[in-house]
Amino acid sequence: MAAPVVDLNADVGESFGAYRLGSDEDLLNSLSSVNIACGWHAGDPVVMDRTARLSARLGLGIGAHPGYPDLLGFGRRNMQITPDEAAAYVLYQLGALQGFARAAGSSLRHVKLHGAFYNQAAFDEELGDAVLRAIAQFDSGLIVFGLSGSPFLEMARGRGLGIAHEVFADRGYNPNGSLVARGREGALIGDERIAAERAVRMVTEARVRAIDGTDISIQADTICIHGDHPGAPHLARVVRQALEQAGAKIAPPGLAAQ
Amino acid sequence: MAAPVVDLNADVGESFGAYRLGSDEDLLNSLSSVNIACGWHAGDPVVMDRTARLSARLGLGIGAHPGYPDLLGFGRRNMQITPDEAAAYVLYQLGALQGFARAAGSSLRHVKLHGAFYNQAAFDEELGDAVLRAIAQFDSGLIVFGLSGSPFLEMARGRGLGIAHEVFADRGYNPNGSLVARGREGALIGDERIAAERAVRMVTEARVRAIDGTDISIQADTICIHGDHPGAPHLARVVRQALEQAGAKIAPPGLAAQ
Amino acid sequence: MAAPVVDLNADVGESFGAYRLGSDEDLLNSLSSVNIACGWHAGDPVVMDRTARLSARLGLGIGAHPGYPDLLGFGRRNMQITPDEAAAYVLYQLGALQGFARAAGSSLRHVKLHGAFYNQAAFDEELGDAVLRAIAQFDSGLIVFGLSGSPFLEMARGRGLGIAHEVFADRGYNPNGSLVARGREGALIGDERIAAERAVRMVTEARVRAIDGTDISIQADTICIHGDHPGAPHLARVVRQALEQAGAKIAPPGLAAQ
Amino acid sequence: MAAPVVDLNADVGESFGAYRLGSDEDLLNSLSSVNIACGWHAGDPVVMDRTARLSARLGLGIGAHPGYPDLLGFGRRNMQITPDEAAAYVLYQLGALQGFARAAGSSLRHVKLHGAFYNQAAFDEELGDAVLRAIAQFDSGLIVFGLSGSPFLEMARGRGLGIAHEVFADRGYNPNGSLVARGREGALIGDERIAAERAVRMVTEARVRAIDGTDISIQADTICIHGDHPGAPHLARVVRQALEQAGAKIAPPGLAAQ
Repeated sequence: MAAPVVDLNADVGESFGAYRLGSDEDLLNSLSSVNIACGWHAGDPVVMDRTARLSARLGLGIGAHPGYPDLLGFGRRNMQITPDEAAAYVLYQLGALQGFARAAGSSLRHVKLHGAFYNQAAFDEELGDAVLRAIAQFDSGLIVFGLSGSPFLEMARGRGLGIAHEVFADRGYNPNGSLVARGREGALIGDERIAAERAVRMVTEARVRAIDGTDISIQADTICIHGDHPGAPHLARVVRQALEQAGAKIAPPGLAAQ
Repeated sequence: MAAPVVDLNADVGESFGAYRLGSDEDLLNSLSSVNIACGWHAGDPVVMDRTARLSARLGLGIGAHPGYPDLLGFGRRNMQITPDEAAAYVLYQLGALQGFARAAGSSLRHVKLHGAFYNQAAFDEELGDAVLRAIAQFDSGLIVFGLSGSPFLEMARGRGLGIAHEVFADRGYNPNGSLVARGREGALIGDERIAAERAVRMVTEARVRAIDGTDISIQADTICIHGDHPGAPHLARVVRQALEQAGAKIAPPGLAAQ
Repeated sequence: MAAPVVDLNADVGESFGAYRLGSDEDLLNSLSSVNIACGWHAGDPVVMDRTARLSARLGLGIGAHPGYPDLLGFGRRNMQITPDEAAAYVLYQLGALQGFARAAGSSLRHVKLHGAFYNQAAFDEELGDAVLRAIAQFDSGLIVFGLSGSPFLEMARGRGLGIAHEVFADRGYNPNGSLVARGREGALIGDERIAAERAVRMVTEARVRAIDGTDISIQADTICIHGDHPGAPHLARVVRQALEQAGAKIAPPGLAAQ
Repeated sequence: MAAPVVDLNADVGESFGAYRLGSDEDLLNSLSSVNIACGWHAGDPVVMDRTARLSARLGLGIGAHPGYPDLLGFGRRNMQITPDEAAAYVLYQLGALQGFARAAGSSLRHVKLHGAFYNQAAFDEELGDAVLRAIAQFDSGLIVFGLSGSPFLEMARGRGLGIAHEVFADRGYNPNGSLVARGREGALIGDERIAAERAVRMVTEARVRAIDGTDISIQADTICIHGDHPGAPHLARVVRQALEQAGAKIAPPGLAAQ
């Protein structure tokens, strides 16, 4: 039986001008994919350039992380934008990052929406469809990262795009497969050993213990490590080691067999 | 003897959100190339998308028009940025526009810096070199538009990039080939017939009358029509008709022989 | 019996950098109050300065017109901001405009929220309360403009602030006193004579014909003229003349008796 | 003989949205004045509100710290703005911060330009004059902080404004009283004990050792502690203690005698 394969991703390149956020240099060594901020909710061209070159040198899968035009709110606040605006915002940010990926001798492999954009596109079918149309127009070979099991990923597949079911090692799950909302009990898994065990089980058994104690099925193509808190590099190392000890191979989606 | 060939370009796509600037729909019909604003000094993703699609439908050569991060000053104010910042700002904006060009079924053909960026890169060799390095990294097949006869174009050729010597039909020239500064007498040619005659002579004779009455040599690969005033569409029509009556062919640089 | 008094207001100072919006110079002569954009959804410091000085010279009531941090969407898109953010955004914009009003030898008299901020604060009690708290902290002598008959105005009165019930001459009304939504039949009154007649009746009879043909009661302390379309100066003149012919006095709220 | 009096100031409130910069809570306890960023080169309304309230509670002198419209460059890059733009940018930012100072039960006491704005206004007489005109129009009771001995302060005095000669404890001085440029040897005093000794001597003897070993005269009304590096709170404590041990009183300019 073949070894299970899984991707480890994190949001990186979130610094802006004089402002530093995250510990990218330390974190990148444990990842197989990066979601690079595109200058709207975070990131700037100098940061994008540096992050793309470093990621290319490490052989990581480079992904765009488009967000809302809301630097002040870090892209975490819902905004009422039209589908046409959503499509144009995605095209703009994909293109901007592609320039840096190319200059670094690499190329975009995937797309993961950020924050409020990720959430609103997942629940608003018209908005989500406009985003996927823009991605497919830009490059139909791109892989879309989305919440594991979500209709958004089914829509992406219908557009002919590659998809990766994303899970979160350090987040609690509801029995229906959605994430426990931040601020509620059980939303965050603070102990990195438990997070690592959950990650291993999601990858090797395709199951996770939900917040009510029941076991649910879940597909784990890529595991997200939150990159914007100080403990991120350590959590990433612990999760990666646990996965490797369990026999899993860490690689960007679609690259394992190559 | 082959008919002379020349390109007609203008800065377009400068509207932003609720703000309208220029008469793009009317102007585009007289042009062969467009310099599309990339959202920094002007333009926004929805405007870029619309402008790129319209330009592609009309068969125009699509160019990026990168500017400084100064929407408030329309990119016309000098800023002291480093060469590395300049390179990153150019890569970002080229990439962003390339996304829309691709989605429109076309592709970037040229680059023309905007306003203060155009001027500072022309006179600061280190800054200009950083810009050209970024352009060459992005796509070495791109054509750089620059002031006719300027060292910046020689540097671009040295980088292996295509170049187009740009002239201005409605601007006065100093005896050394530089433009008469705005605000000085003779800076602007208000009469569109005179502007058209000057354009024809620059194309057919490679000469223009300077402000002191002497004739100077000038290479005219592409003629710029300023797009941000109400008379632009009319001026473009008059200049184009005069050129065609003089036997010139209007086409993007490098496309005449194809 | 005393002559009825009413205020005529419009949103002005919406230009930004190289972008021109509205015909302020022409429009201001027909108004008694102005709502000046504060640089967030529209306006910039140079425009604010010029607009405040011109308004002060004409003796108009100067008001702040705070909007969302969304220049790209002209402040018309809903955003999910917290009450604390709302309060801080209002304080910032009130203060910024107060600087220009003072430099022009005048002072802020009123506040009117813009676009999506106006609408969301009207319907979200917690958000509206945070806004009113900020206004009262800044200057408890300010007058709050709000939709005639709305609970938001009652809350403002409860905070000890002055209030002005605002009506729209060129908008249709539902039987419950709310505005007919844009895009629906009857939303806009295109004929300025009819708009003027409706304005006169709202001021002299405190009644308006709703879209279903019924008459409803309405309090008209201030009448809004939309300033961002070319016909605004003409509409303002026609409405003002009709009001004056009907014996009404045009003055900022609270100033008639002084 | 009366005890010498000196002010200790630092640039604070430089965080923006999700980005944290500086250690304001820790630093503020050692200061007598704060220069609060106004949302252009750094800071945002929520940060301004929090910083103004905390400063008011501690009884610190609250100052505005206006910068260029360049968040991406942290206001450190020269920009070519006109005197009218400079005046409007200053009025806007003074007003914005005044709103928060008032809401905190306090009021603006001083103004200190930031970064490139500070430097360009010091050397460009026309720009400096426009800035001072705006400050005087806003509130002629404000105190202007500027480089000790600079003509800019003389111009401020000529406008009837209060002035405070500013010195830097941790920067090297040229024999002519200007600062040694960053990046050159001797620009920064890394040892906080030496910085504290220099501060004491500037306050008690009005002299400082220049980089060439000569002693120069210098007036020290206020001492700047750079706030944007991790060691700032410690440096501020060491300098304050040394000054107090030398018998100096620490107070905002103009308040010592009250």
